Amino acid sequence: MGMKSFVEVAVDSHFPLENLPYGVFKPKGGGGPRIGVAIGDYVLDLAAVAAAGLFDGTSLGNTQCFSQSSLNSFLGLGRPAWKEARDMIQRLLSAEEPTLRDNANLRDKSIFPMTDVEMLLPFVIGDYTDFFSSMHHAKNCGTIFRGPENPISPNWFHLPIAYHGRASSIVISGTDIVRPRGQGHPIGNSPPYFGPTKKLDFELEMAAVVGPGNELGKPIDINNAADHIFGLVLMNDWSARDIQAWEYVPLGPFLGKSFGTTISPWVVTLEALEPFACDAPKQEPYPLSYLVEKQPKNYDIPLEVCIKPAGQENSLVVTKSNYKHLYWTLAQQVAHHTINGCNLRPGDLLGTGTISGPEPEALGCLLELTWNGQKPLSLNGSECTFLGDGDEVIFTACCKGNGYNVGFGTCSGRVLPATQ
Amino acid sequence: MGMKSFVEVAVDSHFPLENLPYGVFKPKGGGGPRIGVAIGDYVLDLAAVAAAGLFDGTSLGNTQCFSQSSLNSFLGLGRPAWKEARDMIQRLLSAEEPTLRDNANLRDKSIFPMTDVEMLLPFVIGDYTDFFSSMHHAKNCGTIFRGPENPISPNWFHLPIAYHGRASSIVISGTDIVRPRGQGHPIGNSPPYFGPTKKLDFELEMAAVVGPGNELGKPIDINNAADHIFGLVLMNDWSARDIQAWEYVPLGPFLGKSFGTTISPWVVTLEALEPFACDAPKQEPYPLSYLVEKQPKNYDIPLEVCIKPAGQENSLVVTKSNYKHLYWTLAQQVAHHTINGCNLRPGDLLGTGTISGPEPEALGCLLELTWNGQKPLSLNGSECTFLGDGDEVIFTACCKGNGYNVGFGTCSGRVLPATQ
Repeated sequence: MGMKSFVEVAVDSHFPLENLPYGVFKPKGGGGPRIGVAIGDYVLDLAAVAAAGLFDGTSLGNTQCFSQSSLNSFLGLGRPAWKEARDMIQRLLSAEEPTLRDNANLRDKSIFPMTDVEMLLPFVIGDYTDFFSSMHHAKNCGTIFRGPENPISPNWFHLPIAYHGRASSIVISGTDIVRPRGQGHPIGNSPPYFGPTKKLDFELEMAAVVGPGNELGKPIDINNAADHIFGLVLMNDWSARDIQAWEYVPLGPFLGKSFGTTISPWVVTLEALEPFACDAPKQEPYPLSYLVEKQPKNYDIPLEVCIKPAGQENSLVVTKSNYKHLYWTLAQQVAHHTINGCNLRPGDLLGTGTISGPEPEALGCLLELTWNGQKPLSLNGSECTFLGDGDEVIFTACCKGNGYNVGFGTCSGRVLPATQ
Repeated sequence: MGMKSFVEVAVDSHFPLENLPYGVFKPKGGGGPRIGVAIGDYVLDLAAVAAAGLFDGTSLGNTQCFSQSSLNSFLGLGRPAWKEARDMIQRLLSAEEPTLRDNANLRDKSIFPMTDVEMLLPFVIGDYTDFFSSMHHAKNCGTIFRGPENPISPNWFHLPIAYHGRASSIVISGTDIVRPRGQGHPIGNSPPYFGPTKKLDFELEMAAVVGPGNELGKPIDINNAADHIFGLVLMNDWSARDIQAWEYVPLGPFLGKSFGTTISPWVVTLEALEPFACDAPKQEPYPLSYLVEKQPKNYDIPLEVCIKPAGQENSLVVTKSNYKHLYWTLAQQVAHHTINGCNLRPGDLLGTGTISGPEPEALGCLLELTWNGQKPLSLNGSECTFLGDGDEVIFTACCKGNGYNVGFGTCSGRVLPATQ
């Protein structure tokens, strides 16, 4: 049985007292952006709770960190403050605690139905890095783009490969995505294709939100790395495969990715995910010492992708994968990212890369699921190779605990036609 | 003969009345960051000038854009406001204009010797993109990394190749650079090298500073592209060639670059550079229509790199190149960057990539100058392949007008030993 809140929480809710993910919202009735946590189908306004003095006596009392339009100040405070906040919010929302439960005025001011708020980007993203940490994805992409001989480049097993992504085009779940135009591969001696992408894809990813970070020139030791990660969100790293295939040699993906990246509004903390920690995969070859953790850890987070084709009522599941399929761990990503002295800042985003599992139904993008368009999926009888205008893509993730869930809600976006 | 200011400007100064580059500074005597322009060996404090009401009556009068700690608000205002500011500042500083010249009190408050101020990063960089726009550099690097057959990948002549760089580690000229550690290529069957880079390099670049920018999903037409560029700075994109060579397949450069990028403190505006505009190179194949400008334009900006070896008094010129050697123009870079709908924001930085010219003495990095360490340079009798601890690298650029210069000052950094 799960913990009990005085706020009603359905049994299958993603957001019980065990979760308490953070987001930034704006009441539809008026008022600026402020920080909240999800509880059932409600949002607790932490700015209002703080203004009522309920964080007084904790290290958060004088920080004003909850009356901000982004989580960044709170992210910068680090794990001890995050724990204090979680303990206090869990207590205030519990069924036994009268402080908020019995204060009708404060309850009215601080608890909003989710339908009455608009969710915003929860943090300002200074830099967005995207890793490439699923071996199954690396192998499939390598096979498709470069052929079946040595599909995974030799460096892949020695270091968590990553590239810098575009921060400006990261949007919140629910934002429409305009089909990008660009150059695609020429065929034979013809000039390159130019026009709306013909190979629009989703990429099933999660992304870690950076906490305090490090000074330039001072790497983060792998055994302290987890203290620099606040939590995780779902992420759809939309991709135009024809643009990507033509542009990516030798400097990597650029316009094939930078037209839009969608994240889910609720940041689920590592504390909430701790019950779902599991063993990390065995790594062979054994990594260099700066990548060796005392207790390597993954998380068992079941992931699902649905597509709601244009004009249809129902969405269909096209993928079931899991965060635990990742080869490189979060701590290894942080240690590698900073080993050269690169500085991470609060609110930086570290994408996992597409999370594909070993099974054919666990592939994290259409490039893999349809083998670059050669094997169309059947969606309610219509064929799907890549995404069409009007298609909506919906990610969801939910960890199943003993009598409760720790879920991520959804991360969705709909494709709009290209601008002319 | 150049224009005359009441502030003393030496004949060989980079900063006469024709230039007026913008920066952000802090008086060493105390006080916060604010915006200034360089004039001779002095800085004019625009916050003080604005506070005295001298911008009243222009569109800048009520903006507070000069009392900020970054140029970003001013960048967002766009070209008409930039022109108003330039006209006003040029008038206020001219020898004939009494307003500031004859106001001893305001002069004392608003004009600082450069030696009495500290220069700061002039703008907040949301995203940093680095292009690869010198054909000579692309050809040399391709030959070194992949061999002499087809050194330039086929896409290069069709689009301005670029990658996302790391924004957090961009530092102001004068900041020391800690030698990065990382993984280098394994030799034969041995495990990868790990340790301080053995191939630390500079990259001679310039970078454009973005003005208003565009909304997500709305590309910038190439013939409006110049209105989105405020000006240029010098940039040293420090590189660890052994780390880069091992990590860059398939997603591009990452830790081989992200440990530090240095920019010069003064942003030279496109208005100041206009007298040095020159023809852009002929492009063959002819580009796709979204990359075709009515009046393609480059700039004739002579560039110089000096190295001051550790422990020595004198620096030596190792490269003389020129911005005009670039194949892809600024406008083409902006049009390409946004053709997929990617949004640019005020303060985004667009690096040119290493600027190498056709001559052996015009190569923009040690990788090319020493042919990956095979042909050492002789610096004051000592051999140089890559950078040693204590070496200082100094870039400078100066356009020669008729009786005046439009210069960029310097962009410098010294190498510190790796942390243990």
